Amino acid sequence: MAVAHPANHEGIMQSYGLTVDKFLDHAAKWFGTREVVEADAGRVSRRTGYADLRARSNRMSGALASLGLRFGDRIATLAWNTQAHFEVYYAAMGAGLVCHTLNPRLTVQHLATMIEEAEDRVLVVAADLLPLSRALLQLCPAIEHVVAIDAALLPGETLGDHRAQLWDYERLLDQHGAASAWGDFDENVAAGLCYTSGTTGRPKGVLYTHRSNYLHTLRTLQADSIALTAQDVLLLGVPMFHANGWGLPFAAPAAGTKLVLPGRAIDGASLATLMRDEGVTIAVGVQTVWLGLVDHLERTGGELPDLKRILIGGSNCPDALINRIEQRLGVYVQTSWGMTELSPTGTIAPPYPTGQGRGASGRPPLGVDLKLTDADGAALPSQREAMGHLKVRGASVLDRYFRAESDALDEEGFFDTGDLAMIDADGNLTICGRAKDLIKSGGEWINPTEIEAIVGGHPAVRHVAVIARPDARWGERPLLVVETADASGTPDSLIGMLRGKVADFWIPDQVAEVEAMPLAATGKIDKLRLSADFAAGQISTTHVGR
Amino acid sequence: MAVAHPANHEGIMQSYGLTVDKFLDHAAKWFGTREVVEADAGRVSRRTGYADLRARSNRMSGALASLGLRFGDRIATLAWNTQAHFEVYYAAMGAGLVCHTLNPRLTVQHLATMIEEAEDRVLVVAADLLPLSRALLQLCPAIEHVVAIDAALLPGETLGDHRAQLWDYERLLDQHGAASAWGDFDENVAAGLCYTSGTTGRPKGVLYTHRSNYLHTLRTLQADSIALTAQDVLLLGVPMFHANGWGLPFAAPAAGTKLVLPGRAIDGASLATLMRDEGVTIAVGVQTVWLGLVDHLERTGGELPDLKRILIGGSNCPDALINRIEQRLGVYVQTSWGMTELSPTGTIAPPYPTGQGRGASGRPPLGVDLKLTDADGAALPSQREAMGHLKVRGASVLDRYFRAESDALDEEGFFDTGDLAMIDADGNLTICGRAKDLIKSGGEWINPTEIEAIVGGHPAVRHVAVIARPDARWGERPLLVVETADASGTPDSLIGMLRGKVADFWIPDQVAEVEAMPLAATGKIDKLRLSADFAAGQISTTHVGR
Repeated sequence: MAVAHPANHEGIMQSYGLTVDKFLDHAAKWFGTREVVEADAGRVSRRTGYADLRARSNRMSGALASLGLRFGDRIATLAWNTQAHFEVYYAAMGAGLVCHTLNPRLTVQHLATMIEEAEDRVLVVAADLLPLSRALLQLCPAIEHVVAIDAALLPGETLGDHRAQLWDYERLLDQHGAASAWGDFDENVAAGLCYTSGTTGRPKGVLYTHRSNYLHTLRTLQADSIALTAQDVLLLGVPMFHANGWGLPFAAPAAGTKLVLPGRAIDGASLATLMRDEGVTIAVGVQTVWLGLVDHLERTGGELPDLKRILIGGSNCPDALINRIEQRLGVYVQTSWGMTELSPTGTIAPPYPTGQGRGASGRPPLGVDLKLTDADGAALPSQREAMGHLKVRGASVLDRYFRAESDALDEEGFFDTGDLAMIDADGNLTICGRAKDLIKSGGEWINPTEIEAIVGGHPAVRHVAVIARPDARWGERPLLVVETADASGTPDSLIGMLRGKVADFWIPDQVAEVEAMPLAATGKIDKLRLSADFAAGQISTTHVGR
Repeated sequence: MAVAHPANHEGIMQSYGLTVDKFLDHAAKWFGTREVVEADAGRVSRRTGYADLRARSNRMSGALASLGLRFGDRIATLAWNTQAHFEVYYAAMGAGLVCHTLNPRLTVQHLATMIEEAEDRVLVVAADLLPLSRALLQLCPAIEHVVAIDAALLPGETLGDHRAQLWDYERLLDQHGAASAWGDFDENVAAGLCYTSGTTGRPKGVLYTHRSNYLHTLRTLQADSIALTAQDVLLLGVPMFHANGWGLPFAAPAAGTKLVLPGRAIDGASLATLMRDEGVTIAVGVQTVWLGLVDHLERTGGELPDLKRILIGGSNCPDALINRIEQRLGVYVQTSWGMTELSPTGTIAPPYPTGQGRGASGRPPLGVDLKLTDADGAALPSQREAMGHLKVRGASVLDRYFRAESDALDEEGFFDTGDLAMIDADGNLTICGRAKDLIKSGGEWINPTEIEAIVGGHPAVRHVAVIARPDARWGERPLLVVETADASGTPDSLIGMLRGKVADFWIPDQVAEVEAMPLAATGKIDKLRLSADFAAGQISTTHVGR
């Protein structure tokens, strides 16, 4: 993209590499006593100032070097939101290693595939996940070291017959920790590796750079974005293995924000206690987390007087849930849209009301550009108030997947999100569904997401999904799958909500009630699994009259 | 600083050049109807949406190319805060030209030196400054084109016998405007050139890069910094020829903020009308501007109901003035410290009370690092609560001055600001004076800034300066120079304020009353001029008893 130019056209400002270690350096120097608080089941287990935390992380870089890790090597983590996981982020990235976060809720087979593709040499694992990691190691002979974090190893604990050496994190740090140089390399060096969830196909890796993470962080801190300040207390309710924890393990120290890490437990009761005790002002996570918190507070009558804002991402959040959260907690709910491939923030609503439709997910900030196209990739003639395939381009968007032969971009440099979306006159984005989820019935398209949004407004509905079922006459027909909280959510009452709101042919003629909706590791409904279960005859349906 | 590394250590995110044209592109696409409003003496003369403004700026790039300007060429501006000046910023920088802003309040000789050193080929000039530019052109034979902005040229208007061609901006745009490619070059290309004020020596140029301006902008937008949002209306009360207008011509479109440009007039009456009519929420400028506004409102009883915040920079602001502004306007005053060499923001107080001492100027944001040293450049053993020479390093700090042979940095890469400063336990910076302003009396140092702060609290004092006068016995002695508003500011009453507050030997034994304090073009007191006038016997003094 850049054209050649003589050096005397360059300005003469200082060189300053955009590497993520600078976030923790900044916090250590200017907010040294501001804390990172770690909890276990809602009770604080550890609190450490940024200065001490920086010193520990930096010494851990030395310990990792003592294990033989060299610049560019990859190190996997299988861990919750804890101080040690946070330290490993910086210990790895600061030294030019790649921190490869793994989702403990994936299958052993999926995890092994990722570790093998990444050629990870070290596995950092939460002590309570050692059983999982033992099974995983059977499939991963190349792992050389396993470092257990968050709890001391029990005497005699081993990895069985695996060749890898087992370390206790604190002992490793004590015995081999050493101050290390951080960030003394090019800003385009890889910093992190994260795989997409794989609910819609084979998992694919995204290899973040220091620069992409740094620019994402600066975006996050803006007043119209997540807008962290040095007086805020942030609860990280999104896992650190999920797309850099939405970039907040970078943004919090960059802003001098007190950071509350809930550990493994993000149930309503644990969060209520922790958030109240630590004075949390901003909390982030997917909608199911906040549903659990509101349920708990409604049962117990508790209050969270310091909480000002909740940031929701991951999927469209029903209006009814947003209203319920805002009213019960007395907070403002910020909506957002993002993807692992975007580092992950795409659009975000500002931290104040803007008049956007409640189903919308905010506007793109500087550094994110959007384009809507038709199915052939041609830009829609009007980019406003029309549904199209959503493409994105920008400072923290992937170029190509890890190990891919070619880039994932169109000729203009846009990445295809796979989503269908609309943009309103004010620039607010609404995700309308996955392009590949669309159902083709009698040659016409049906959008499951719209049906789900309407049925989801029924008070008895806990989860709703619309999937395609094969149909001899129409090709495909929509099947409504629900998990209900009580008996009032009858198939007829649910279908009745759709009449007059969608085209008649969109209305499902079969309804399936499930005990528990299958959720993917990211908390999203696992539609692949639903379709497979239905095909295997494991889901029974009720015919309803349209 | 960067070490070599194999390409396979690089991450694989999109390339995205940090060039400033992206700010206006973003505003045009996502905030196309949000306005840039231009005023003349407080009355709106023009309002243009960002989409139209982007189109005009981009076409002006084509017009500049038609004048023969090529990538890397420099173009000077001698202009106020107007739409056309804003357009020229982007027309030049977007095309890879360097926008060299000149301060119309400097002498013709100073301006000519700058134009010659910069090798400017084009001069853009406000129509009301054509007389000045005619005098200037006599000293600048190399200028090839003069473009008059803000008002149509009168018929028959010429440049006398100068070879340069005279253009009317709108006619040039009409006749030669053409859509142009923007930003397709390396982000380290020079974008702007601005000279330091020269009150303390020969003016020196700072050559900003696209990257340094881009990173400065992202810093400015943070919630703990200037924190512009898309719902704000910003009054730019600091000249666009002064260090990129504090970076706000970049930050406003980047955030989708409505921008109000006051033109030449920043007197209290003009600003009061304009700010009220346009619903300004945030206003920035040096303290003398806000003093004028408050004076006007106190006289007229006017109100500014939409105004939330005022940002002050340029020099330490007395507590009494901050309190007066906050109480009269019902706003919050944000303090800051910066320099042309810093793009210009150094430290800034967040947009909410933090408990910092009111004389302080906030904390360094991410990307700015501070160091206090002794006079020999060795870091002070404690960096808190001790006064030292202030050094700064970071993403938007100069490396070396324009045309300089060597960099202006110490071994650790820090730039010497020339200021004396303290940093409190919370990291807030207080500027204590200029290192070279210190007065050495009997072998001991006296700090004029402390004396000025105390005497400035007298209700009759409009301006106060303490300079050194040669003294046969003590080497130097402090001379108190004041401009007073009424007769209550007698020399004895002013000196009386110092007793018990500073060491006895700090107390001046001579006082000079001046009719009008000499101010430099930036609004700062011109101490060089004061010293020269005193040496020339043009300032008479009164002896006072200590």
